[in-house]
Amino acid sequence: MTDTKPFVALCPETLPQRLGGLAALIEKLGENQGSWRVKEVGDGNLNLVFIVEGERGKVIVKQALPYVRLVGESWPLPLKRSYFEYHALMRQSDRDPGMVPEIFHFDVDQAIIVMEFLSPHIILRRALIEGQRLPRIGRDLGLFAARTLFRGSDLAMTARERKQDLALFSDNVELCDITENLVFSDPYFEASLNRHTSPQLDGIVAELRADRDLKVEAQKLKHLFATKAETLLHGDLHTGSVMVTMDETRVIDPEFAFYGPIAFDVGMMIANFWMSYFSQAGHEQNGNREAMRDYLLNVIETIWATFCEEFSDLWRSERNGILYQRSLFEDRGDLLGAEQALDHVLHEIWTDMLGFAGVEIHRRILGLAHNADFETIADLDLRARCECKALKLGRHLAVNRRHIHSLAEINSLAKRLEKETVI
Amino acid sequence: MTDTKPFVALCPETLPQRLGGLAALIEKLGENQGSWRVKEVGDGNLNLVFIVEGERGKVIVKQALPYVRLVGESWPLPLKRSYFEYHALMRQSDRDPGMVPEIFHFDVDQAIIVMEFLSPHIILRRALIEGQRLPRIGRDLGLFAARTLFRGSDLAMTARERKQDLALFSDNVELCDITENLVFSDPYFEASLNRHTSPQLDGIVAELRADRDLKVEAQKLKHLFATKAETLLHGDLHTGSVMVTMDETRVIDPEFAFYGPIAFDVGMMIANFWMSYFSQAGHEQNGNREAMRDYLLNVIETIWATFCEEFSDLWRSERNGILYQRSLFEDRGDLLGAEQALDHVLHEIWTDMLGFAGVEIHRRILGLAHNADFETIADLDLRARCECKALKLGRHLAVNRRHIHSLAEINSLAKRLEKETVI
Repeated sequence: MTDTKPFVALCPETLPQRLGGLAALIEKLGENQGSWRVKEVGDGNLNLVFIVEGERGKVIVKQALPYVRLVGESWPLPLKRSYFEYHALMRQSDRDPGMVPEIFHFDVDQAIIVMEFLSPHIILRRALIEGQRLPRIGRDLGLFAARTLFRGSDLAMTARERKQDLALFSDNVELCDITENLVFSDPYFEASLNRHTSPQLDGIVAELRADRDLKVEAQKLKHLFATKAETLLHGDLHTGSVMVTMDETRVIDPEFAFYGPIAFDVGMMIANFWMSYFSQAGHEQNGNREAMRDYLLNVIETIWATFCEEFSDLWRSERNGILYQRSLFEDRGDLLGAEQALDHVLHEIWTDMLGFAGVEIHRRILGLAHNADFETIADLDLRARCECKALKLGRHLAVNRRHIHSLAEINSLAKRLEKETVI
Repeated sequence: MTDTKPFVALCPETLPQRLGGLAALIEKLGENQGSWRVKEVGDGNLNLVFIVEGERGKVIVKQALPYVRLVGESWPLPLKRSYFEYHALMRQSDRDPGMVPEIFHFDVDQAIIVMEFLSPHIILRRALIEGQRLPRIGRDLGLFAARTLFRGSDLAMTARERKQDLALFSDNVELCDITENLVFSDPYFEASLNRHTSPQLDGIVAELRADRDLKVEAQKLKHLFATKAETLLHGDLHTGSVMVTMDETRVIDPEFAFYGPIAFDVGMMIANFWMSYFSQAGHEQNGNREAMRDYLLNVIETIWATFCEEFSDLWRSERNGILYQRSLFEDRGDLLGAEQALDHVLHEIWTDMLGFAGVEIHRRILGLAHNADFETIADLDLRARCECKALKLGRHLAVNRRHIHSLAEINSLAKRLEKETVI
């Protein structure tokens, strides 16, 4: 820490000069920095993102800002989130090779990550709003979740390695704090940053905020989130954190990474597909979305089935950590003991995943950070009808998660809700 | 870290010279180091313990050794456990004042803690073996558990403070590793360090090691222990870690401290009273222990009732952390919402506490570290009969913990087991 330069935000004008000397960039872009074209493309809530194009190719330059971009300088947020993002990307790349962008350079002091420019990839959320039916995402996301979450846990890692990693990521406290407040608490009372489609949703919002069972469940889920340090999570695994083509799926933006419950990533991901499902009615100007709706429910089933299948395969082949050791089961010829334990572990993930899905739906409609799925529906009455159905499903999931047996059951309920007149 | 001297173990001869210059010791013992009398009294499994007596009084000097004393130099164990013990004592002293020894000096490099000499206190386990019925322990230990465990959790602390503490204690990996292996795994297969009263217990030991449901439960409890970073635990809260008089209770030796589930400390503590209960039949040479047995079951009920009562009081008065926030409940006039959440939290502690109690009983009879309660019973047939009853209760608790409703139910079962001919 001898020659740390003070943090300075990049801009298109200064970027070539500031990063032009980096071997990694010269290799990717070419030596003629003067010819680099820089475009700011960040549409996220937190960071600056640039596409830099040179003679040889393009890269992405991502820089954290010392505040929440969505809110402004009044909400400071430490630059070190870039450090957690970098470390999370490295681990995810090991655990599910090819599923995250390649990293070319990392500058911890300037909070800059230079990474692979993904093209012609687009953000999954945008593709779903456009009604694209991408064939690979269910399987790719199910595998990504199973591989990163299993391999980052005590099921696979040595205790020492995992506890060191836990300590490293436990310093990502400000980003955890955002999730803890924005997902689990703010939606359920009149927090100052909340907003919702008003007055259309005022009735159901009041109902949800008066719903004792829901509030208690949301706080029990927060308790799980804050204390169940089970695996290294992505921490923000929604359809806006996935880039896709018809052939490829990549997961980006793990700056919320920390040790939490396996079920959190899975539940947040699946919730975003249910929101996409209920938002489709708002995007039917250019044609009916019935097939898209079937597709989305199918993707949800594929994510979960793939997750379970891959998690089970890893359980059988890579369970080399301190939990459910082979010495107690397989090594004594007790195959069924290991399978019984697997069933219990998957059952707990299932139950908690539904809860996390429920509150994720709520916070995207009642809290600070809304989804383009609903936000791009210009007709507010129509938007509110879509949102209301999602809110109702979210409440059902969060409160009844211990008594729900299958995705088929939930998806059948979603279809009935979709046909209902709710407000 | 400029002038760190290499670690050298203390001995009675060198101690006055090495520690004689410390102001804290001079104040407690007097200036004439030449007259200090040093007695090595360590009967623990891990450390050196000395009583040092001077003209003005006595102190305890505790020094960690770089290996497990019980096993020898073949099992290295880092000196930094002394650092965790010191930090845990400081926090416990804040959270339940007067319940841990006062600390006079800490030397991190030499792993030395100088602390209050407790007199005429004796180790609680020894008192129970002698048949002493101490009036305060149930209430004192229930309060200690509730206060330290509530106040060290996300229920009371800020997220930042708790996550920093979590990171600090996550480095106590070697001591956690001991618990993870010795409590949750080794007892359930033929691990090399295990021993049991043989051949008397061979039959039931084989039965327990073939018991799939038990092994799966033990591993689920290990999963909880390793991942549920809920509060700063004592980590080794058994009757050998408590010093007592008729008027006072003090808790010592928190070197296993780390962030784990609230239920762990409570379950381990209560388990040791059930073991004491079943061991009483081995100590009846000088008279019937029927009243002692009633007393012990009564202490268990008092610990749990006091824990629940104090935890509930703190829930209502000091719930200022990030979980179950007042802004969602009391601040909106929803008193019952907060009580509903409390019931859920206590119910989960209850269920998990019974499981931890079950495996603690098993590991003390089947694993490496046995209890004086049973070990001091010279007649091996008699010892084995006592141990067998405890093993059976342990199995019942671990496997059926979700379906047990009250301590009255368990204590009634314990009484029936006590009267049975088991082997």
